[in-house]
Order: sequence, then structure tokens, then C-alpha cells
Amino acid sequence: MIERCLGPHRCRRIQRALRHLKVTVLCLVLTVVVLRGTIGAGKFGTPEQDLDEIRQHFQPSRKRAEPHRVLEEIQTGADSSTSGDGGGGSNNYETFDINKIFVDEGEEDKPDPNKPYTLGPKIPDWDEQRSDWLAKNPTFPNFIGPNKPRVLLVTGSAPKPCENPVGDHYLLKSIKNKIDYCRLHGIEIFYNMALLDAEMAGFWAKLPLIRKLLLSHPEVEFLWWMDSDAMFTDMAFELPWERYKEYNLVMHGWNEMVYDEKNWIGLNTGSFLLRNNQWALDLLDTWAPMGPKGKIREEAGKVLTRELKGRPVFEADDQSAMVYLLATQRDTWGNKVYLESGYYLHGYWGILVDRYEEMIENYHPGLGDHRWPLVTHFVGCKPCGKFGDYPVERCLKQMDRAFNFGDNQILQIYGFTHKSLASRKVKRVRNETSNPLEMKDELGLLHPAFKAVKLQINQV
Amino acid sequence: MIERCLGPHRCRRIQRALRHLKVTVLCLVLTVVVLRGTIGAGKFGTPEQDLDEIRQHFQPSRKRAEPHRVLEEIQTGADSSTSGDGGGGSNNYETFDINKIFVDEGEEDKPDPNKPYTLGPKIPDWDEQRSDWLAKNPTFPNFIGPNKPRVLLVTGSAPKPCENPVGDHYLLKSIKNKIDYCRLHGIEIFYNMALLDAEMAGFWAKLPLIRKLLLSHPEVEFLWWMDSDAMFTDMAFELPWERYKEYNLVMHGWNEMVYDEKNWIGLNTGSFLLRNNQWALDLLDTWAPMGPKGKIREEAGKVLTRELKGRPVFEADDQSAMVYLLATQRDTWGNKVYLESGYYLHGYWGILVDRYEEMIENYHPGLGDHRWPLVTHFVGCKPCGKFGDYPVERCLKQMDRAFNFGDNQILQIYGFTHKSLASRKVKRVRNETSNPLEMKDELGLLHPAFKAVKLQINQV
Repeated sequence: MIERCLGPHRCRRIQRALRHLKVTVLCLVLTVVVLRGTIGAGKFGTPEQDLDEIRQHFQPSRKRAEPHRVLEEIQTGADSSTSGDGGGGSNNYETFDINKIFVDEGEEDKPDPNKPYTLGPKIPDWDEQRSDWLAKNPTFPNFIGPNKPRVLLVTGSAPKPCENPVGDHYLLKSIKNKIDYCRLHGIEIFYNMALLDAEMAGFWAKLPLIRKLLLSHPEVEFLWWMDSDAMFTDMAFELPWERYKEYNLVMHGWNEMVYDEKNWIGLNTGSFLLRNNQWALDLLDTWAPMGPKGKIREEAGKVLTRELKGRPVFEADDQSAMVYLLATQRDTWGNKVYLESGYYLHGYWGILVDRYEEMIENYHPGLGDHRWPLVTHFVGCKPCGKFGDYPVERCLKQMDRAFNFGDNQILQIYGFTHKSLASRKVKRVRNETSNPLEMKDELGLLHPAFKAVKLQINQV
Repeated sequence: MIERCLGPHRCRRIQRALRHLKVTVLCLVLTVVVLRGTIGAGKFGTPEQDLDEIRQHFQPSRKRAEPHRVLEEIQTGADSSTSGDGGGGSNNYETFDINKIFVDEGEEDKPDPNKPYTLGPKIPDWDEQRSDWLAKNPTFPNFIGPNKPRVLLVTGSAPKPCENPVGDHYLLKSIKNKIDYCRLHGIEIFYNMALLDAEMAGFWAKLPLIRKLLLSHPEVEFLWWMDSDAMFTDMAFELPWERYKEYNLVMHGWNEMVYDEKNWIGLNTGSFLLRNNQWALDLLDTWAPMGPKGKIREEAGKVLTRELKGRPVFEADDQSAMVYLLATQRDTWGNKVYLESGYYLHGYWGILVDRYEEMIENYHPGLGDHRWPLVTHFVGCKPCGKFGDYPVERCLKQMDRAFNFGDNQILQIYGFTHKSLASRKVKRVRNETSNPLEMKDELGLLHPAFKAVKLQINQV
């Protein structure tokens, strides 16, 4: 009827405009949603005077972008069999339309709206199951040295190409950076590109993944989740595992900001440690309910905005949910949660990246804190998306600098360094020698003590 | 003067056309240069009837593409200091000109034309240096289990973004694939993004890198070089280390094709093992001389085309050079080189990717050969460049399938699989349980025997 009144042409234009409007609004919401970050101030780890500057950074500035989609996944219904890719076609990648190789994958299974969300069947005896398994499998110990737990670093990204050309390049540099740190520190990596649970898409996707990995790998003592936009900038810093002996969850943050202020950025879930035990499973179960997408996540978002300090309006995110969980159930969880501000288990990039030259001048790797941050985390940059919360040039340039800052610590092992923090080229800083093993390894990263094989002790 | 004759406008147009022509010719040469691949036929590993089909694939087909450069690195002379990224700027990645963040890095040092190229100072006593070091460093053994040498897998890509939008995405999937295999097999990874020696650019860049890593890591027994366009498709296959006890270099190939035919694709240097010893250093020194770019590499290319069977005309590449080296100096090197055709240490993608469904139907992981190839190597696809030797759609579609084929073997550990080999989405194939540790791990990949911690034995 509308069509008869307005004419088919105008009708289609109106429909298209409505679709565009929906997409724009959705993009706006998503921008705010992933604009989260832990910034810190106070004491040793993160100087107090940065606090105001940091808070200023976290007034989300959202510039609207045209929803121009470069790589758009469309339902093509193309035959997915091997014969489908034809015999001919251009060799030119630049003129290639990547949509051609996407297949129609059908509708998602709709979850039963009457069934409350669950990460999986309740497991009440995981500690016993795990200790039994460890006892039966002494060749897979959960400690790989005295005070050295077996750690699995978990990270990942979406399975599809980034919406903008350079996003995947930065994901590549980011995983190389993690490979380097983890190789030096005897840590294994799991890079996830699978969405295990469509209801828990986006930042909530880590929860089903973490649970699955904990339960599959009883030999893993700590699971270290790390966002793809976080980079290691101190290759020499070994985590103080002894400090966390009595704790099950370690995040960068401050007690006051979480428990007193209920500040939504009082902690950061972009880089955290979770011990493999019953407590962790129970925590995941308690954390998950705000996650399922749609009405639940939206409504939960409103609760979080109302309850937490400084939180903008957007759907529930895992970090805000964690703040809320801890602040409202401190008695249940608080005694096993370590909010670490002594070093940058997560370091907000905004207050670090302009100081790299000063750090090089005055300090050295191994400190992990504001003098030489362990992790520089590019919250809000979102290089894989269409637009971020900061100017693109600033983000990419600083991501290159952070990458090079960390990479220099690897290259110096081999006698090289980047020509500058902005340069991809490297230069030699130490001549070749016919006695390479006599070379002094200044940072001790060539054969790091924390990597040496020691006695295997099965500690449960 | 030219400018006065033709006018500045036409003059600039002519200059631009000349530059474009140079780029086109260079791209043409590079296309041919990296069109190399080992294909195999015969005996057990690679059926003979595929030989003709394979040889057909290796008539290089070169389609000229417009030198339209999407991401072009220009000398901007921009200030590389932190203040250079400005305060404003768009948040939109799509409209961002990535040239803005490149810096002027100056000219390369020109090598002395009178000085013969060398990878480094001659080291005559590496075996002694290395065994001394190992004796003094029992916590860094070169064998991490009986018959299990310490292996370092080395791969990498150029430090700049790929010239086409999807290239980096495939590099990312490729490294994830390698991370998965190596995690299961207790192998460490070194991902290189630094050009250590400008003279040895391109595929020759691996030589200085390999030498540097061998000399820096005496604890590494085998260095496994693997191209970025090669993917693991058998996650369960452990290399038969015992077989190589007496050998120092293992490549996929055939004795007849190398020593009798001098066929340029008689072996493949896209995936090979090199033992860390004096022999390897000497081999690298003997291999390197055809590599230095410019006149040396061009002239060497002519020699190789003349001397090797089936080799097209292009500058010297490392693979052809290796065939030539072995064929002409068999007495020196041959007894320590194992040309492996029993499984696909390198598997030419062209004869494998259409058979994945048949493999799934009839076979299982752990075979490593034509029934379930260890490695599928996408020679000639070049997704990081502007154009490859094959239609883009075929390459990308098959790379996705190969990735998924391998990824399914990882996902099944956790009860998931891709919806199809063409689909990025995954589906559950095993329900969650409250007794996860009782689950039967069919492929034995969850806690693989080759990963179990065993006695550390310092074998030299």
C-alpha cells in the first residue's frame, strides 16, 4: 500500500534510507561498545597525574562514518564444492571481488528464548577431575619449573578479512609480537578464529573459548587472555608468578576504582590471567549471563550504565560486567582476585606511546611498568574495523612504534635494530664474529633463565 | 632540454610512462622468479600419474596486470618523531592514506662491488664451539626427548602491508596454522619480518637469517624453514626424525630429478630441515654466491637456465641454485642430503586441493603423504602481491579450503568443525559434558605423545 501511495521508486529509496540509518545506528552503538579501556593511576605502576588525561581520553568521541563497506560478506549461494572455482579468471588480486568465494552458510540456529543461557553443563568437581588427571599424566605437568606454571596465552580475531586493508597487517604484526614474547618465556599460544557460540559474539566470545580450553587442557595452570590489539613492549619482563600463588584471577586495575567507585574502567579484561580450577568455572558461569546478544545484552547494558561510574550507554560488555560482578559480590570472589597495578599487565596506549624515546634514554627492559611497559594496549583503535575512536594516523603510527619498540628487543639479540621507531628497515648494530657464542647477551634474552629446562614437578 | 622540446607536461607524462614500464617489467620478472615449486611423482609419496599434470601446471602463465599500486611506499620525508602524527585527522580507516605514516629512510648502503659477497666471517670450528656450549648449558639441551631434536620453525613475510587487501589476511591464517601444528609438536617458531641483508632480498633473504639463527641458537638441532604460502594439512604427522639421523639437509624431492635430470623442480626449498652444524654453515656459504641482487643474480640466472632442465629465464632463485649445487657437487654434499618423497614435506597444492573431500572420505590424519598431505604449498599464488601465476579465485578459495582442512583437525579436539571446507563458520560435533576428561581424543592430538615431557638428554 505504501508502495502504491509513493510509487515503487520512492518506496525503494525510503527503504534503502531506513536500512542505511539502521546500519549507522548499529555502527554507532558498536563503536561505543568496544570503546573500553583500563587506564590507571596511582601508586607505582601508573602515575596519578596521568589520571585526568586518561579520563579525558575516555570521553568517547564518535565520528560518524559512511557505512561504506569494502569487503562485504554476501549470501551468494555459490556451490562450495571444489569444482566451483572455475577454470579461468583473472590473476589480478586488485580487481578480484572477494565476495565470489563466500558461500551461503544458512541461518544461525535460533536459541530457545525460554532456556536461560549456559556456557555448558555444570561441573561441580573440576578440581578433583583435574588433580586425578595430573596424577595420571606426569608427562604433562602443570608446573614446568619451580614457580613456573604452564601458561597458555589465548588470543584471536574474526575469521573474515578485516573491513579495511591494513587491519590484517596489524593483526599479523601483533601475533608475531606475541610469538616472540611467548617463545622467550616458554608460553604456548592458542590463536582463535572460530566463533564457538553465536549468542556470545563479539567481546563475549572469549568466555566459551576460555571455558573450552580450560576443560580440554588440565595441564594448563594459567590461561592468559590477550586482546589482538595489545602488544608486548617489554620482552624481558617475566610475570611475578609467586605473587599470584593464592589468587585465581589477575587483571590490571585498582581496588578503589572497582570496589569503591564501581568505575567501568577500574580494571581491564584485555589482558588477564585465569587459573584453571573450579573457581574459574564458577566465575565464568557468573560472568556470562549478561553476554547473550540481543535483548539480554541490551538490557544488561542499561543496568551497567546505571550502576557503574562513567559508563556510557551501550550494550553490556565483558569488562563492565566484571566490574559489576566484583563490586556487588566482593565477598564471594574478591579474595581470589588480584587487581595488579604494579606493572602494565595492560597498559593504555594513550599515555605510553609518546614516551618510548624517553624510556629508551632512561630505562631498560625488564621493568614492566610505566618506565618500560610490559603491554601497550591499543584500546579504541580498532584497525580491523571501518573506523575507530581515534584518528587513524595516530593509531597506526603509534602501533608501528610500539611494535618496533618491542621488536628492537628481539632484534638486538641478533645484533640488529630498527633504523628508527617509525621505520620498518633494520640496521646492524653488532658485527658478525667467528665466535658468536662468546657474545655478551645483554638483556639475557638469548637463553633466558625462565626458559631453561628444570625439574618437572607435578604441583596441584 | 627534453623538457623544452616537448613541454613540461608531456615530459612528465613520458617520465611517468617510463616508470610504469619499469615497474611492469620488474613485476613480470618477479612473477616468474617466485614461480617455483616442487612437484613430485613416483613411488609412494606422490603418484606417477600426476607427473604430466604437474609439469603442465609449471608452464608459467603470466598475465600482465596494470601496475596499479594500492599501497605505495613513498619517500615522504615526514618527521618520524612522536609529534608527527598530529592532533586531528579522520577516524575512518577507509579514507586513510597509509602513505602518510611512512618515513624517509635514506638510501641503502651500497655494497663494495670489488668485495665478493659473504654471509659472514668464516667459522671453521662451529661443531666444537657448539658442543662446548651444549656441555656447559645442560638446561638448554638440543634433544628434548629420545629421538626428538629441538626444532625451530622459521618463516616470515615482508615488513610492509601486502599490495592487495587480502594478502595479509592469508598471511595471518597461515601463521595461525603453523602455530597450531607447532604447538602440538613441541616446535618453536621464529617469524621474521626484518630484511637483514639488502643484497640478499627476496627469496634469498632466508640465507642470512638461517645462518644468524643457527649461530645464535646452538640449542637448536634442526632449523625448519617454511614459506609463508605453505600450510600444514596434517596436524597429526610427526616427522620421522630417526630417518634423518645421518643427514644434515632434508628437502622434498627426488634423487633422479636432481642428480640425473638436473630438473629445476627436482626439489623444493619452500620447506626444508637444516641441521645445526659446520656442514650447514659450509653449505650456506656455497649456496649464497648466486644470491646478491643485481648483475650477479641476473648472470647466475642465465647459468641456471642453461644448466637446469625446464627452467625458464629469470634471475637466480635459491631453489634452482640448490639443484645446481647438488647436481654439480654431489660428492661433496650428496651423502648428507636426504631428498624425501615418502611424504609431503612440501606438497604442491595443484594436485592436492581438489582431493580433500576424497581424503576425508577414505583416510585420516597422520599419514603425511598423498593420502593426507603434511604440507600444502601454494606456490605461484602470491596472495601478498598484485598478481600471481594462477587465477585469484582459485588460489584464495583453495587456500581457504586447505586452511579449513587443517583447522578441522584442531577444532575436532574441542568438538567442533567447519560447516564445510569453504565455510568460515564452525559447528558443534560433540556435546559438552560434565566429564570432559573422559572424552576419547580420537586423533591423539589433545595430549600428543610427541609433546610429553621426557628425560632431557644432551646429545651432540
